[in-house]
Amino acid sequence: MNYKLVFHILGLILRVEAVLMLPAMIIGFASGGDGPAFLYAALITLAAGQLLSLLPARGSKMQARDGFAAVALCWIVLSLFGALPYTFSGVLPNYADAVFETVSGFTTTGATVFTFIEGQPWGVLFWRAQTQWMGGMGVLVLALALVPKLGEGSVYLMRAESPGPIKSKLTPRVGDTAKILYSIYIGLTVAEAVCLRLAGMRWYDAVIHAFTSISTGGFSVKNASIAAYDSLAIEWIIIVFMFLSGINFALLYYALLRNFRAVFQSEELRSYTLVTVGASALIVLDLVLRAGWSADVQTVTDSVFQVVTLMTTTGYMTYDYVLWPTFSQVVLVLVMFVGGCAGSTAGGIKQIRVVLLFKDLRREVQRILHPRVVTTLKSDGDRVDEPILSGISLFFFAYICILLLGTLVVAWDNVGFTAAFTASLTCISNVGPAFDVLGPTCNFSLLSNVSKVFLSANMLLGRLEIMPLLLLLFPSLWKKR
Amino acid sequence: MNYKLVFHILGLILRVEAVLMLPAMIIGFASGGDGPAFLYAALITLAAGQLLSLLPARGSKMQARDGFAAVALCWIVLSLFGALPYTFSGVLPNYADAVFETVSGFTTTGATVFTFIEGQPWGVLFWRAQTQWMGGMGVLVLALALVPKLGEGSVYLMRAESPGPIKSKLTPRVGDTAKILYSIYIGLTVAEAVCLRLAGMRWYDAVIHAFTSISTGGFSVKNASIAAYDSLAIEWIIIVFMFLSGINFALLYYALLRNFRAVFQSEELRSYTLVTVGASALIVLDLVLRAGWSADVQTVTDSVFQVVTLMTTTGYMTYDYVLWPTFSQVVLVLVMFVGGCAGSTAGGIKQIRVVLLFKDLRREVQRILHPRVVTTLKSDGDRVDEPILSGISLFFFAYICILLLGTLVVAWDNVGFTAAFTASLTCISNVGPAFDVLGPTCNFSLLSNVSKVFLSANMLLGRLEIMPLLLLLFPSLWKKR
Repeated sequence: MNYKLVFHILGLILRVEAVLMLPAMIIGFASGGDGPAFLYAALITLAAGQLLSLLPARGSKMQARDGFAAVALCWIVLSLFGALPYTFSGVLPNYADAVFETVSGFTTTGATVFTFIEGQPWGVLFWRAQTQWMGGMGVLVLALALVPKLGEGSVYLMRAESPGPIKSKLTPRVGDTAKILYSIYIGLTVAEAVCLRLAGMRWYDAVIHAFTSISTGGFSVKNASIAAYDSLAIEWIIIVFMFLSGINFALLYYALLRNFRAVFQSEELRSYTLVTVGASALIVLDLVLRAGWSADVQTVTDSVFQVVTLMTTTGYMTYDYVLWPTFSQVVLVLVMFVGGCAGSTAGGIKQIRVVLLFKDLRREVQRILHPRVVTTLKSDGDRVDEPILSGISLFFFAYICILLLGTLVVAWDNVGFTAAFTASLTCISNVGPAFDVLGPTCNFSLLSNVSKVFLSANMLLGRLEIMPLLLLLFPSLWKKR
Repeated sequence: MNYKLVFHILGLILRVEAVLMLPAMIIGFASGGDGPAFLYAALITLAAGQLLSLLPARGSKMQARDGFAAVALCWIVLSLFGALPYTFSGVLPNYADAVFETVSGFTTTGATVFTFIEGQPWGVLFWRAQTQWMGGMGVLVLALALVPKLGEGSVYLMRAESPGPIKSKLTPRVGDTAKILYSIYIGLTVAEAVCLRLAGMRWYDAVIHAFTSISTGGFSVKNASIAAYDSLAIEWIIIVFMFLSGINFALLYYALLRNFRAVFQSEELRSYTLVTVGASALIVLDLVLRAGWSADVQTVTDSVFQVVTLMTTTGYMTYDYVLWPTFSQVVLVLVMFVGGCAGSTAGGIKQIRVVLLFKDLRREVQRILHPRVVTTLKSDGDRVDEPILSGISLFFFAYICILLLGTLVVAWDNVGFTAAFTASLTCISNVGPAFDVLGPTCNFSLLSNVSKVFLSANMLLGRLEIMPLLLLLFPSLWKKR
């Protein structure tokens, strides 16, 4: 590993984080509450960042391993420092709780240890939402947009931080791509905030929910989440924006350029739409035809809302789905596995991976039928290379292993299989709420510190798509070059 | 597909099945109960077999697709005819129940729809155990041992029926390999029956339990399963024989030939042993240190017994593990995923696949560390080809998909997530009992016919390792050649 280069990036990212603590600090001072906590946290973070930047960064070229290691370490360090305001302000005196809440923010998971959200100071609630917004598109992508020249190999940073197996290059220069992505991201956020304000939310709530839905994070300022507003208009506005945020941002860019052919050709978008519609229909069917719910707009809205919020891995709530029959709950668990599209802010395994895995499986069967025919696999008309395919199936294996390992760790808290399994799933898929005693009206404070730390690791593994963090376990990474 | 050849094999297998109904018929007549049911069933099966054999089998060479299709169709047809005695004798008047019980037998799963086992006639209980014994080593492997010349490509039959991604060839001739495997199988069965008799079981029970433990099936003649005998000696005898049956039979053969080097070199055996010891230790730890169970021989025996019985996918019970804390239950769920060794009678994903997937994952990380180094993957010192590796990861993907689809179907019966998920898992892994309301003291009779049919399909998919049955869904298989 190129230590100097990695430390240089870490220093830069910490200084960015310190600056980004300022809005919450201002709100904290203005609301007469938790301003000082953010001031101290920002100063400490800034000092650490400056210290790391004292080391001279060599002009040496960044290699894949450095990029992956830098991203993994950045996300860990960001979380450790981002947790300071929670501890300093006294709302989460247990540092493990503070780290859990921060990781849940940056990874846009949305699982919380707060038992009473309305009672928290304004600065803290704003910081919570803002961590999600920062993590959604990626902090390093932001740094790349701001600081165009981070060394020749900065493409590796983007590769390691942005989700999906196949990276679309919008422009030849990484910095330009980052700027385009952030412009769309900011545009969507502003648009949603305005829509929510028009639908009757006050500005503070509108901005917070725009932050946490465009990033598919799911933190709210209300204990009852979106159900608290009791407004169909707000629910449908949020459904639309969550759905948009689960689409590959490259496609949104093409749509802005009026290249609609690329949009309609996308197999991933088709699968994403199909699963959304299909899952919602299955739930409506289960609730109305079998369980006797009334066949009205509210039931349909609740079904669509819960499917979209869990599939885009946002994790709001308009109805406590733990009260639904088993079938509807299993449909929700399934969409939590799949998640949104690659290159979006959503988590999960991602639609494109599942599509390619099914195609690859079909090819495997065809190999028995026609042993002598060699076939290549195509996606959106382009050939997909074999190493990418094998990478995807190994990713799937690693995903399930981490999910099961997480289940085992949480099980030690004796919460029952359903809660343990779905807690692990909701964390690695960056959704937020789980099922049973960890459902959407509950919170994660009942778990032990060991579980909280392990689930924090699960969230980071999910957000960075495993590989960068797995790399840290290999001793040969740590050899100086 | 070569229809004539496939029909010829189907006819042969049905006639074998008719003959194999005779022992149960004799017991049925001797015990004065259900003899006629077996007589009628055997006659119908024989007639169907004769009818299919009237078609002239061409001497054409069998191809992979024919072998796979023949195995898949044989298992389906065997189950449909094997269910007849249950229906004819009136113990399971619902044919879906009878098919479920038969598939559960042949696939050595051991899930049952009987609510009161002690009350069933002797012939039926014997047939139940015997279906497991026939399915354990494979009915087509038996046919290959009996009828040495089934066409040139009969190696495909063995490949499709015997579990595991890499097939060891004990001898150049398929028929000889089949004979060796069946000799070991019979030897183990006789040895266990004698041991159980010496430990105090009566002969009938000893033979039945030898049948169902060497095949890792798990059907018992008691509602309370092995717990009914309340004997440490019997429990440890069964632990040892279940453990042996979960080992690759090729290794058992090498051990008989005193080639102990091959045995100790086997990475799969090491992993199998390690997981057994590790999982048992974790459960003892959980029960004694945390949940306050008494630290005595019975607790250790129960822990080891439940781990071995679920990991070898047998599915007996000495303690109702649904009463254990969540952690111990999750350990059991995890060993149900992994299962036994390839080339054994056990089900599950198989140890060797999990070992190779972990190795492949490590190699994937090393590709980021050393992008220019090309590494091949080795197992027991031999190179593993890339197509086998990609086949294993796709198998894993298909396994999880079927597991989740099964969960969804069973969920329609509104049994809760834990029961639905573990019912699907226990069926595809060919274990037997599940958790929660489908735990080891319960049975599957509470499920709907749709669930029973779907779980039967899951059991067959698990036993035949997915591919042969998946093949049946491809229209191009059904084209005449």
